[in-house]
Amino acid sequence: MKIEVIENVLKLNDEVAALNRKRLQQARVFTIDLMGAPGCGKTALIEATLKSLSDIRIGVIVGDLTTQRDADRMARITDRVVQVNTGKGCHLEAHHVMQAMAHMDLDQLDLLLIENVGNLICPVGFDLGQDVKVGMFCTTGGDDKAAKHPYIVCESSLLLLSKMDLLPYVPFDLTVFHNDIRQLNPLVELLQLSAITGDGMDSWVRWIRSRMIKFAAKQKVQALT
Amino acid sequence: MKIEVIENVLKLNDEVAALNRKRLQQARVFTIDLMGAPGCGKTALIEATLKSLSDIRIGVIVGDLTTQRDADRMARITDRVVQVNTGKGCHLEAHHVMQAMAHMDLDQLDLLLIENVGNLICPVGFDLGQDVKVGMFCTTGGDDKAAKHPYIVCESSLLLLSKMDLLPYVPFDLTVFHNDIRQLNPLVELLQLSAITGDGMDSWVRWIRSRMIKFAAKQKVQALT
Repeated sequence: MKIEVIENVLKLNDEVAALNRKRLQQARVFTIDLMGAPGCGKTALIEATLKSLSDIRIGVIVGDLTTQRDADRMARITDRVVQVNTGKGCHLEAHHVMQAMAHMDLDQLDLLLIENVGNLICPVGFDLGQDVKVGMFCTTGGDDKAAKHPYIVCESSLLLLSKMDLLPYVPFDLTVFHNDIRQLNPLVELLQLSAITGDGMDSWVRWIRSRMIKFAAKQKVQALT
Repeated sequence: MKIEVIENVLKLNDEVAALNRKRLQQARVFTIDLMGAPGCGKTALIEATLKSLSDIRIGVIVGDLTTQRDADRMARITDRVVQVNTGKGCHLEAHHVMQAMAHMDLDQLDLLLIENVGNLICPVGFDLGQDVKVGMFCTTGGDDKAAKHPYIVCESSLLLLSKMDLLPYVPFDLTVFHNDIRQLNPLVELLQLSAITGDGMDSWVRWIRSRMIKFAAKQKVQALT
């Protein structure tokens, strides 16, 4: 009975996610679901991304159990940010995103960044209507975290390793981390960066731009056929 | 219906947790449920604790989605360790602990350390049969994590702030962190430590010893009445 209910919840979530996806595609908004542990640097990365991609109109949806702190941080850079508080909910679901989208003028956006609730496990299984899921690890979290969290490694279109500026101060073997990822998902891209120093931000920004171009091209083809 | 099922799951969990608690009390084993985000340093703390409390017979139950890595690390120090793999399960439940306990000779233990699955949210609501829950934060995770995770702050008997050796390299305001905790749970104890340098380990070890003495005294009183 427990499993049946979970399946029903996921089915309903998928239906709402499909509606979100349709609405986002109609408005031509490329959407990234950013997932990672609490404190891995998701908010800092989004702050740096907003600054680096200032020529693009970016909306942000931020998920947290409680508080407005992340939205407050981003509100210093953009007014296109909506905070979702999930209460005791350990991940965002499609209906959260739908509610947040109702507070945004999607036609005035090119890119939507969704910062999921800090959690390496639960957000992976929930489609939000995004185009890509991006999984984030950090050097301070230890080199074993990819092996211990295979679902996020397998379900992500891109993996990030953040806090590279702290690598000299922590026991983290890059070879171990890379090998674990290759075993789980041989084709996934991995970028290493530091939102604080800016190292590696160019590759991340280039990745977003290239994905947005592919997204726009696909939409043009769909419009012609 | 979703809520009803969740309540049933929690009720069943509470019943199994009560059985665990009874069994642990009969064997006079003081039990700590250690909860924290992935990469906050739970395994390193348990390794250091095993070394610091070498006069006490300590068993360890380690929860992870997958892999045997934490148990392998601890097996270098003790042979009293059982790994529980939860698959996609984002927290330990009482039945996991019951199954793990079946592989341990409880009468040969004084202390049981349970390392929960790395997650700041989901483990909080599940009683495992422990005597105390200990919540763990780390300096590299940012000073806003207590405010953003009120349930772990409110449900823990003790809070730890780990990775104090990395404090000079990260933006972390101790005053903000302390004030957030005080607002949520004015009476909870907070210890700052580094499992790598050993700083603060003496306070943590003293806390465990004092709690074990209280536990033993309470059991004596119960036996007399």
